Formats: sequence, C-alpha cells, structure tokens
Amino acid sequence: MNVKYSSRMDVVRGSDIREMLKMTQNLDVIYFAGGLPAAELFPTKALGELAKEVIEKEGFRALQYSPTEGYIGLREALVDRLNKVWKAHTTVDQIMITTGSQQGLDLTAKVFLDQGDYVVCERPTYVGAVMAFTLFQPRWIEVPCDDDGMDMAALDAALKNNPRVKFIYIVPNFQNPSGRTWSLERRRQTLAIAAKYDIPIIEDNPYGELYFDEDQPTAIQELDTEGRVISLGTLSKTFCPGLRLGWVNANEEILRKYGLIKQATDLNTSTLDQMIAAWYLQKYDFEADVAEKRIVYRNRRDAMVKAIHEEMPPEIRFVKPRGGLFLWLELPKQINARTVMRRCFERGVAVCPGEGFYPQSPELNTLRLNFSCMPEERIREGIRRLATVMREMLAEAALEQPIEV
Amino acid sequence: MNVKYSSRMDVVRGSDIREMLKMTQNLDVIYFAGGLPAAELFPTKALGELAKEVIEKEGFRALQYSPTEGYIGLREALVDRLNKVWKAHTTVDQIMITTGSQQGLDLTAKVFLDQGDYVVCERPTYVGAVMAFTLFQPRWIEVPCDDDGMDMAALDAALKNNPRVKFIYIVPNFQNPSGRTWSLERRRQTLAIAAKYDIPIIEDNPYGELYFDEDQPTAIQELDTEGRVISLGTLSKTFCPGLRLGWVNANEEILRKYGLIKQATDLNTSTLDQMIAAWYLQKYDFEADVAEKRIVYRNRRDAMVKAIHEEMPPEIRFVKPRGGLFLWLELPKQINARTVMRRCFERGVAVCPGEGFYPQSPELNTLRLNFSCMPEERIREGIRRLATVMREMLAEAALEQPIEV
Repeated sequence: MNVKYSSRMDVVRGSDIREMLKMTQNLDVIYFAGGLPAAELFPTKALGELAKEVIEKEGFRALQYSPTEGYIGLREALVDRLNKVWKAHTTVDQIMITTGSQQGLDLTAKVFLDQGDYVVCERPTYVGAVMAFTLFQPRWIEVPCDDDGMDMAALDAALKNNPRVKFIYIVPNFQNPSGRTWSLERRRQTLAIAAKYDIPIIEDNPYGELYFDEDQPTAIQELDTEGRVISLGTLSKTFCPGLRLGWVNANEEILRKYGLIKQATDLNTSTLDQMIAAWYLQKYDFEADVAEKRIVYRNRRDAMVKAIHEEMPPEIRFVKPRGGLFLWLELPKQINARTVMRRCFERGVAVCPGEGFYPQSPELNTLRLNFSCMPEERIREGIRRLATVMREMLAEAALEQPIEV
Repeated sequence: MNVKYSSRMDVVRGSDIREMLKMTQNLDVIYFAGGLPAAELFPTKALGELAKEVIEKEGFRALQYSPTEGYIGLREALVDRLNKVWKAHTTVDQIMITTGSQQGLDLTAKVFLDQGDYVVCERPTYVGAVMAFTLFQPRWIEVPCDDDGMDMAALDAALKNNPRVKFIYIVPNFQNPSGRTWSLERRRQTLAIAAKYDIPIIEDNPYGELYFDEDQPTAIQELDTEGRVISLGTLSKTFCPGLRLGWVNANEEILRKYGLIKQATDLNTSTLDQMIAAWYLQKYDFEADVAEKRIVYRNRRDAMVKAIHEEMPPEIRFVKPRGGLFLWLELPKQINARTVMRRCFERGVAVCPGEGFYPQSPELNTLRLNFSCMPEERIREGIRRLATVMREMLAEAALEQPIEV
C-alpha cells in the first residue's frame, strides 16, 4: 500500500526524550534526559486511599464521561490555589482542564495557527511546544535571549515586521531547557509590546513554583489587565504526571474557543484523574508537598552544579538555574551533542541533546541535563561519566585541528 | 483585544451532546441525548480496590510519565483480547493506546489530512468524527447508505472522481447514529474498492461487542490481508468512559506515524487509567461484564422500541437497531428536530437532533435517541413525553399546511 500522509508528516520529528524514556525501564541507567519528577515524592499512600474512596463513593461520576471544561471540583480547587499562590484574580469560567499541559499546547495551535502563520518564541524554546506547533506548519521567529529574558528590541521588530504573528510563546520561569528566569522589567515590557501590536501572550508556567534561591517569580498574567495573557499550567511537576492534568487560564471569550476545540480533540480529560486530584487538593497539605519538592530539587541542583565544577573540563559553560528541573550546557563549537548522547548512552547515562529546542536552526553543541529524578550520589556518578566523555571528545577534536604552520 | 484566531475557528461547531451533558448533573432529567453507558454497571467495588493496589504497589510507575505507545501491560491485554474476541492476528507493535477513541480520530486527521483533502464517510456519520476531522478543514463526500451499508457504486464513484480522498471512514457495527450494521458482503466489497484505489479504511468500532440479536459482526480488519484497515477501539462502552482509554490498531509503518503525532498531542495517556484497566483485564472476568451489558442494553432497547410502537404517531419512522446504544428516528419533513429538542427539554427529556451527524447538508428532521443509560420505566416515560411533543408539532404543522383548493 502506498499511503498518502498529510504534508505535516514531512516536517514532524520525534523527541529524543520520548525515545529515551523507554530507557527508564532499565533502572541501572542514570537518567538526566527527561523532565521526570522524583517518583519517591509521590504521595502514594494517600493517593491509594483516595482513589479507592473516590471510586467507591462516586464511581457513577468518576468513571463516567464528564464536561469538556473539566470537573467543577478541580476547577474550583485550582482557582482557589491560583488566587492564593499566584495572586491571580481568576474564576472557574476562566479555567479549563487539559490532558496535561502538552494538550494545552496542541489546543493553542488549533485555536490560533493557520499554515504559514508566525509563532514568536524564545531561542531556545521548549521542545514540546516545537512539536505541538510544528504539526500546524507555522513559520517561527526565534528571539535571542540574555539572562533576563528576550531581547526587547528584537521582539518589537519581529512583531512590527510580521503581521501574521499569532502569539508570543514564552516560558518565563526556570525555562525548559535553559533554566533562565525573566526579570520583572522584561515581563512588563513584553506585555507593553504585545499590547502595542495587539498580540496575545502564551505564558507556559510549569516550573514557577519550583524556586530555590529567592521568592516565587511574578506571573505575567498577574500584570495583565486586558485578558491578553493565556496561561498554561500543569500538575505534572508539583504533583504527578501520570495523572494527565493541566489547565488553560484565559479570558472567557478565548477560553470558549479552547473548549470547542477540546471537545473535538478528546471530549474530556480523565474524570478519575481529575477527581483524585481535586480531592487531594481539598484534603491534604499540597503546599507542604511543593515545599518538600523545592528542597529536594534544590539539593539535587546543588549536587549537579558542584559535580560539574569539580569534574567537567573548563570549556563547558553553563548558568546555575535558580529553580525548575533543568541545567543547560553549552559545549565548545566542535563538540556535537548527539555524539555525546550516544557515548553517554554506552556508559549508562541518558542525556538530551539541545537541538530539539530550536525549531529552525539548532545549536548542535548544546545539552540539557535534568536533575530532579536521580538521588545525589547518582547525579555525581552521572556527571563523572559525562565529564569523561567530554574530555575524550575534546582530546579527539584537538587532534583533528589543522596544524598551524 | 482583537484576537486573530485560526481559520478553522470559522468552521468549528460545538456538539449538542456535550452541551446537554451538563444536564446530567440534574438527576431528574430523562437523558436520551448522549452515549453514556449505564453507570450502575461500572464495577466500582473491584475498581476501587484495584486503584488502591495499583497506586500502593506501583505508584512510582502509575503516577509517572509513560511511553507514548502506551503501558505495555495494557497493550498486551488488549492484543490478547482482540485476537480472542475479534479473531485478529495482531501484536503489541500494532497497537497504541489513545486518550479515548476521540483522540484516535484527532490523530487520524493529523496523520492524513491537509486542508482541502477529501474524507469519504457514511451519510449520516458519527458526530465526533465530524468534529475532529472538521478542525483540519477537509472536503467531505457523504456516501448514501441502505440497511446493509454504503452504496457501493457511489463509493466507487467517489474514489474514482476524487484523487485527493485520503481515507474511507466507517462505523460498520451498530452505527452511531443510525444503528445500522453492515452486511458481510458490503464489508468485502468495500475492502476490494479500497484496494482498487489504494486508499486506507478507518474502521471505527466502539459498539461491535454490544450485539443483541445475533452473533458478533466480522471486523473488516479481520478480512484485510494488506494492512489497509486502521481500526479504532475503545474501552468507553464496554468498560468505563471516565478512564479515557481507546486504541489504534494498524500496521507498523502507519502506527509509527500515529506515535509521532501522539507525542506532540499529549505525550501519553493517563498512566494510572491504563494500569487500572490492564490489571482489571488480567484479574477479572471482563467477558462476563460485556455479556451483562448486552443483556441490560437489549432490554432497554426493547423497552424503547415497544414504547415507540405504543406511543408514537405512525408518521415517525425508525429501524430497530440490532446492537449498540442508539435508535435513529426520521420525522416527517416538516418537523424540525431542534424544535423537538427544545420542547422535550422543557418537559425534562434530553434528545439529540440529527443535524450534527451530517458534515455538509443536514437532514433537519432526524433525531438520535440513546437507550443505554436510563432504566426501563424512565425510557417508557421519556418516550411518552417525546410522543406528546411529536403529536403537538404534527398538529401545528397540519394547521400550517396550505389548504388545497
């Protein structure tokens, strides 16, 4: 059979991370490749009891179809929390549950993108957004960034020169992959520039509550008085990703569009997952859970940073992330991160090349390391092996240099 | 803010069913509108215990991200069952778990459809497919049907005249909405015509195991020796829809494309839902559950058919469905089913107008009734109220007739 696929199948590419996730079945592997939260922090005892209680008491509802917008108990619990923790002023009519935050990206693409429209994003940007948006065949403008966020002049120029820009996509807190957190000033400026060109902002915020060294950042949505910011949230990093639970928080007109699209996409998110999460948020001390994650992940970040300082050749550059799950390495130009990945793999270490985080012209000498899912001594051992690979490759690269006469 | 949405937002429409699902929160409503399975048949006791066991014993896995293709235990259990119950010859490499069967439709659209491509479907066809495919802005060819399935000459002509047909979408067993089941001969002919034009067949089969009067139908995929048939399955009708679990069963080349697309769509289906279902399939007598549903739904169908015969004016036509969840009414041409819906709503009965089941030119005098989720005495009462509305509207229509001179 000669199957005629859609033209998007010519541009879609798989994620290295999803491929390497299969490696996690082998417990000997030191796994820095994905964005897995620490499974040992899952509240399994409480959730086991709660799942039983939800099904036994309300199985007629928990096991049935449910409204596309989401289970009202979960929407209410999330609204309460957003208003408290993020100083939001949101209501249940402004929140819709999604099947993980990845679905929030898929729905965003469907709501906004026609083939050939422009997406403005950070350089580098989140690989899951690259995958989701690519299916809708947009053009991309990757705006260069420094430690405080996007270059504002470049952002302004991008919007000025391209009337088919549909939205600005950003991960302002402890960005995946770079670890970068935007300054308050850049957040304000971005909002002003978006207003000038009347463009919505997609604020993807999976990591904002996982801050280690200072206070929680300010959400751009909190600064927004026009309903311009569409915020994507998730319980995957602060709770459990196996329950596929995210949300879209947006003004009511925009959210109705997301609702129409979600109907056509999967009718509704798992009712059982939603009810378990809602009951947990109501009955347990979720804030204590998040605080515990901050401590454990900070310690793991510290272990990784220390090991890099001690083990890694000085040619490898990185900025210490102030929160989140990721550390981003820039290697010397002559080092290809895909080769690093393969050699690490042979040594039982899974790492993620950075190229997937660039929708157009990748930097092949970048590497993302995750520090959330391995205990500290495994982190040290993994960095030791990675450093060995780096030294090996630097030595080989030096031999291949043309000899100057 | 003047938001610029994608052009698909101009064509997307919501489903009456999803809107009316909100009515189910009011337990007094007699609900014929959706496709809800009977909640009183959910194995809540067993599932409560099992959910607790899964989370307590394997929470580190059940609450974590999992492979895009699905939890291997569930894929194995489904393959065993398909090979036994449907005489399939499939393997785990040919099955991928989806977030409900609705996601199977979304992924199908993404894998195959460019804007302007043709979809060939039955007339009428499943509203969820209309919604999912419409987002990708195809053109439609609705092939007329009789009691045995599609008109084969019309199908052949459609494929002959339209080289941009990407697939044939059919629900051959106890179709939603019409209740129709295809003859074996038409299944064979369709496969031959698809082969002649080298086109894949999407066989959507949510209801095939819910047969009441005769043996289980033969799957078109069972007749296929070329890997031409892509079968969509679901646990929503035979198990519980609140766990969002469906699957795609296709040849390995095609299934890899679905996998790439699913990655970008929601990474993976709820791990917890998948593990609960897998353990249930392994430990409990699932075949006995399905057999029980056949009996309960047959009795409800019988109650609805009997009530229609007794209560409804003779102008209302329908064919008794031999399985599934739905009964399809054709009303006199002058009766608009949307008005019927509104008047029934005032009398506490939710019904579904047929127009959503036509992607292009709807028959406004059609109505779908679901008989699976209400006990028999509620079905009788609901049909009585519906019949009152019908008589009322027929009398009004008679008054409006031009008087012949």
